[in-house]
Amino acid sequence: MTVTDRPGPGDAIASASSLPSEGRTRVVIEDVGPSIDGGRFPIKRVVGETVVVECDAFADGHDEIAVRLRHRRAGTADWRETPMVALGNDRFRGSFEAEAVGRHEYAVVGWIDRFGTWRRDLRARLEADQDVSIDVRIGADLVDAAAAGASVDDRAALERWAYRLRADEAAASNRARDALQPALAELIAGNDPRPFATQGEPILEVVVDPVHARFGTWYELFPRSTSPDAGRHGTFRDVIARLPYVVDLGFDVLYLPPIHPIGRQFRKGANNSTEPEPGAPGVPWAIGGLEGGHTAIHPELGTLDDFHALVDAAADRGVRIALDLAFQASPDHPFVRDHPSWFRARPDGTIQYAENPPKKYQDIYPFDFETEDWRGLWAGLLDVTRFWIRQGVRIFRVDNPHTKPFGFWEWFIGEIKASDPDVLFLAEAFTRPKVMYRLAKLGFSQSYTYFTWRTTTTDLRDYFTELTAPPVRDFFRPNVWPNTPDILHETLQVGGRSAFQARFVLAATLAASYGIYGPAFELGERVPREPGSEEYLHSEKYEIRHWDLESHASIAPLIRRVNAIRHAHPALQTNDGLAFHETGDDQVLAYTKRAPARHGHDGRDAGDGDEDVILAVVTLEPQGRRSVAIDLPVGELGLDPQRPVQADDLLRGGTIVWHDGRATISLDPADCPAAILHLRSAAADRAAGSAG
Amino acid sequence: MTVTDRPGPGDAIASASSLPSEGRTRVVIEDVGPSIDGGRFPIKRVVGETVVVECDAFADGHDEIAVRLRHRRAGTADWRETPMVALGNDRFRGSFEAEAVGRHEYAVVGWIDRFGTWRRDLRARLEADQDVSIDVRIGADLVDAAAAGASVDDRAALERWAYRLRADEAAASNRARDALQPALAELIAGNDPRPFATQGEPILEVVVDPVHARFGTWYELFPRSTSPDAGRHGTFRDVIARLPYVVDLGFDVLYLPPIHPIGRQFRKGANNSTEPEPGAPGVPWAIGGLEGGHTAIHPELGTLDDFHALVDAAADRGVRIALDLAFQASPDHPFVRDHPSWFRARPDGTIQYAENPPKKYQDIYPFDFETEDWRGLWAGLLDVTRFWIRQGVRIFRVDNPHTKPFGFWEWFIGEIKASDPDVLFLAEAFTRPKVMYRLAKLGFSQSYTYFTWRTTTTDLRDYFTELTAPPVRDFFRPNVWPNTPDILHETLQVGGRSAFQARFVLAATLAASYGIYGPAFELGERVPREPGSEEYLHSEKYEIRHWDLESHASIAPLIRRVNAIRHAHPALQTNDGLAFHETGDDQVLAYTKRAPARHGHDGRDAGDGDEDVILAVVTLEPQGRRSVAIDLPVGELGLDPQRPVQADDLLRGGTIVWHDGRATISLDPADCPAAILHLRSAAADRAAGSAG
Repeated sequence: MTVTDRPGPGDAIASASSLPSEGRTRVVIEDVGPSIDGGRFPIKRVVGETVVVECDAFADGHDEIAVRLRHRRAGTADWRETPMVALGNDRFRGSFEAEAVGRHEYAVVGWIDRFGTWRRDLRARLEADQDVSIDVRIGADLVDAAAAGASVDDRAALERWAYRLRADEAAASNRARDALQPALAELIAGNDPRPFATQGEPILEVVVDPVHARFGTWYELFPRSTSPDAGRHGTFRDVIARLPYVVDLGFDVLYLPPIHPIGRQFRKGANNSTEPEPGAPGVPWAIGGLEGGHTAIHPELGTLDDFHALVDAAADRGVRIALDLAFQASPDHPFVRDHPSWFRARPDGTIQYAENPPKKYQDIYPFDFETEDWRGLWAGLLDVTRFWIRQGVRIFRVDNPHTKPFGFWEWFIGEIKASDPDVLFLAEAFTRPKVMYRLAKLGFSQSYTYFTWRTTTTDLRDYFTELTAPPVRDFFRPNVWPNTPDILHETLQVGGRSAFQARFVLAATLAASYGIYGPAFELGERVPREPGSEEYLHSEKYEIRHWDLESHASIAPLIRRVNAIRHAHPALQTNDGLAFHETGDDQVLAYTKRAPARHGHDGRDAGDGDEDVILAVVTLEPQGRRSVAIDLPVGELGLDPQRPVQADDLLRGGTIVWHDGRATISLDPADCPAAILHLRSAAADRAAGSAG
Repeated sequence: MTVTDRPGPGDAIASASSLPSEGRTRVVIEDVGPSIDGGRFPIKRVVGETVVVECDAFADGHDEIAVRLRHRRAGTADWRETPMVALGNDRFRGSFEAEAVGRHEYAVVGWIDRFGTWRRDLRARLEADQDVSIDVRIGADLVDAAAAGASVDDRAALERWAYRLRADEAAASNRARDALQPALAELIAGNDPRPFATQGEPILEVVVDPVHARFGTWYELFPRSTSPDAGRHGTFRDVIARLPYVVDLGFDVLYLPPIHPIGRQFRKGANNSTEPEPGAPGVPWAIGGLEGGHTAIHPELGTLDDFHALVDAAADRGVRIALDLAFQASPDHPFVRDHPSWFRARPDGTIQYAENPPKKYQDIYPFDFETEDWRGLWAGLLDVTRFWIRQGVRIFRVDNPHTKPFGFWEWFIGEIKASDPDVLFLAEAFTRPKVMYRLAKLGFSQSYTYFTWRTTTTDLRDYFTELTAPPVRDFFRPNVWPNTPDILHETLQVGGRSAFQARFVLAATLAASYGIYGPAFELGERVPREPGSEEYLHSEKYEIRHWDLESHASIAPLIRRVNAIRHAHPALQTNDGLAFHETGDDQVLAYTKRAPARHGHDGRDAGDGDEDVILAVVTLEPQGRRSVAIDLPVGELGLDPQRPVQADDLLRGGTIVWHDGRATISLDPADCPAAILHLRSAAADRAAGSAG
């Protein structure tokens, strides 16, 4: 080694480039959560939910620190603050309530608590009988500093404290003991000058939606199939007539496939035939004809006035209308003529139709999001959506969002929610997991899921565990469907009535939001177009159907009962509080859901707690009675571990009392493959009575 | 519901506020790692290590994407790129080598692979015998686009391809098949115009250190105790004379406690007495006297020339000198006179000494980092450090960094490493986990650990699992010490020679960097100041000691042997590749370490692989023979699962052959409580021979 540069001591040259603007910021705020991708995206909550925030906070040395959680409506200046509580290991927790629909911000702020440190040290000095005459003078200076920025009343009080600390007619130790009073600490806490405070970065965001963004019960139908007269095209007036049926079954969102004029060029016929039968009604997703595009109504459904009547009639019954946003065009769409640059031209001058080579979908033109006029295209699609919002639509089911750029959706949803924060978007992206999650992160209020294809106990358990745990639970709200017009799963094709019942109960109790495509679902429609296909034979996508709602095969009674249970039980209105339990039978899934009871203790039964607890048990095997025993973690469920569990059987009626947390359930798929039970701690006398 | 605003269709107003500058960026890059706190801090590597980067990357729709990893030296403009390989599920992986000491940047870039998409679709069309006459024209346009930005040679080649694609004397299907040749795809890949590419944000950083930042063998001694003459103050010349001993034992870093003048006011005596005996040498950490401060040398140790001689003599033997940076002052430090504002004044005009109420440390003045002149203080401390760097010191052990602001250290280490990127800092922060990790994240090259207090098999296993797994492994480099001048753990006080041996082997084989405070350690110094204390009786912090290096009690032979094993085996030079194995005995810890062998297959033995695999087995119970059987996961260790395992016993000599991966080990703490074995796949003939 050669030391080439060895000046003597003392002649080092100060280097102070890249100095921070303030070097005395000593508190570190780390790992603030919940947050999505380091704060790149907002978390989601609904009105009335609590945002529980945790972070690490610490400083150098041994000084005490003060840590507060602050939140505000986005775009406003003033923070509201709540204290954060130390959990140990430098972890802090605080919370605030999501009070209003819209975008809100939150952050953690921390600073050296000089007075708290002084107070802690003073106490130690007093206990050791040390001289504290200097310390009370230091304390008086701290009180002065707080007084300087305090309100008039507090300032006067603080100045009195400072005077007492300095008043040397009393022994310093007495003045010190006096200054340990909580009253002074509280006065300082409200007026702490917060020297060199740190605010966690970046500021985090939460999008607060209406409650029905979390808890909703969806019903999808094709309006054109709602005519009571076979052979006649259904209308919005027919849909109005169908509303009592929908409401009676307990649904509160009615989702309609596209209601716009349908293209004629390359129109498809029954069962996706490229040679349509005469009078074929076409596919509603082939949007646009001579009658207009995305803001027009298919003439056979009625007029815009009829649509308004439907929206109003539904609203009167507590039902929201959800429309389909399918951003694509038929070759007859007015956009093709008016905005040719929004589509991709091929070298021969034709327009590029949708493809998945070698498959061709010549009845659909996708928009070219790489168009030079992308700004015009984006604005046009926003216009379409704002139009329907003005017609009273506040929920949109978005068709195939994963085939349009992510950046478009982030802007689009942001624009809509800036003016109409209660509007919700359901992402119909049946695609790869990371794509689905990205769409949820960037703003979709709800998302379709893989539920339809999760058909084993292990798969269901794994999937719903993932969906209900952080970070997914904070940005992705599942809306689960046992069927859709595109998906008739093999389970339903082969499992008979029991499979429909099981899949229905799973959907309605595993997730706070679910939907069915009816009447196909409740009537047990189950024939595929061909073996191995998930397409319906005689799918309503291509044909008008007429349904016998009075069929004895309908499972409408079960649907009505389960939806009533969902409305009565807060545990089924949230995706939190889900826990799976071993049944010892790989065909039987058991899970509990729990949530705070809506009205707390009602005093009616000593066994009632403040928790609403539901146990669901479902056999996935469509035939054969199954009996299982489940060891319930009674204490973890918020029930009294010292008392038996009383289970009210909400589907079959009756009440069972289980001892030692051991639940025994027998299911007969010939009757119903599922049980839904409301769990409570049994009253002491009942317990004694049943114990013998 | 009342719909208040219902204009007719078509009059929606375009809203295009908050549009992005480019809306056609379609590729998403997410979850790029390794990264620390979302890229807030750099990861760490040493020269020659590989940075393996993974990310999620995807686009809307079904287009193919191209994904590349780019890296560059920080502050330079040009990226170097390597391809990333698709792992499935939208995950990609690539890597680059940390080639040079300093700060480097890396990022992922992705774009729609238009040509790749075209090629994939073209293949599908050809397989379905579709007309491709339009497609070859589209392909020719894509080739033209690549040609436009290509180098002269590539442009000519691409233009020839475009001509061939358009040359309609050949059938379109033949031209299409021609265009599927890999040569064209490669030509395009090298000249892709990358429309609307996405670069992952933020750009991530890696600090590349010299190899000895990862693999180092430290020895701490008090220079004043190195005199061979009892009663004489040791000097740097004595330390030079001690170097052969240090080198013979296999150490390559010699760490010296502070070498500066020691304060006289409130000087401490033996065993931390506040009433020092006459001639008490004082505590080296009470820095500063009439003779100078942090850039001066304690006169009794020698001169700056003597120090230079020590640095050079050490370097000649492959030993680096590590100095102590203790940023605090004795009351006699020149800074107290020259920079009174760097200390906190009390109301009575005195300077605030160090305290942990009710304890007082009047011999130490901490710097007041909340001083108005914090810029001057920071610059002063940087000057001190640069001074010693100019004297040839490239490693600093930083005393109590957790009592100075985090922001100071981030700036300070950044400044030093900007000019001297090979300089290393070891953080002596024995404090709470999050504080220790923050210091590591913000720049400390190595960190002291909780190893000393991890004394059970469970605790050791849990702790080293945490340290060697992401994210900790990417920012925190452990330097583990069985003892320090401050810490004589109870295990050593009561466990006798066997405890010293066990703790030594654990330190030297669990971590790539470790150190001992000697000669106290190798000589088995084990008497505490009082029962329950971790302080040494007659600690060298307060007294000059003289050590009998020739003592028969010394475990120097074991240390020499183990350090030689460390130097011979790459597996012990990294913290990667650590795995713990069940022994069935909660007092016996077994673990393997593996790394690529330095020179690959040496051909000497058919059983040698390209992996260096070490098995260490240590009993924590200081008395009584223990025998354990361990089921080695032979395949996971990179050994041939079809062949027996041959274990060379590196401490006791001899070779054992184990069949079916079952290792049997017997340890006698009266001899040595640890075994270190080099594992290989046994040669076929040997295996056959041993099998009978």
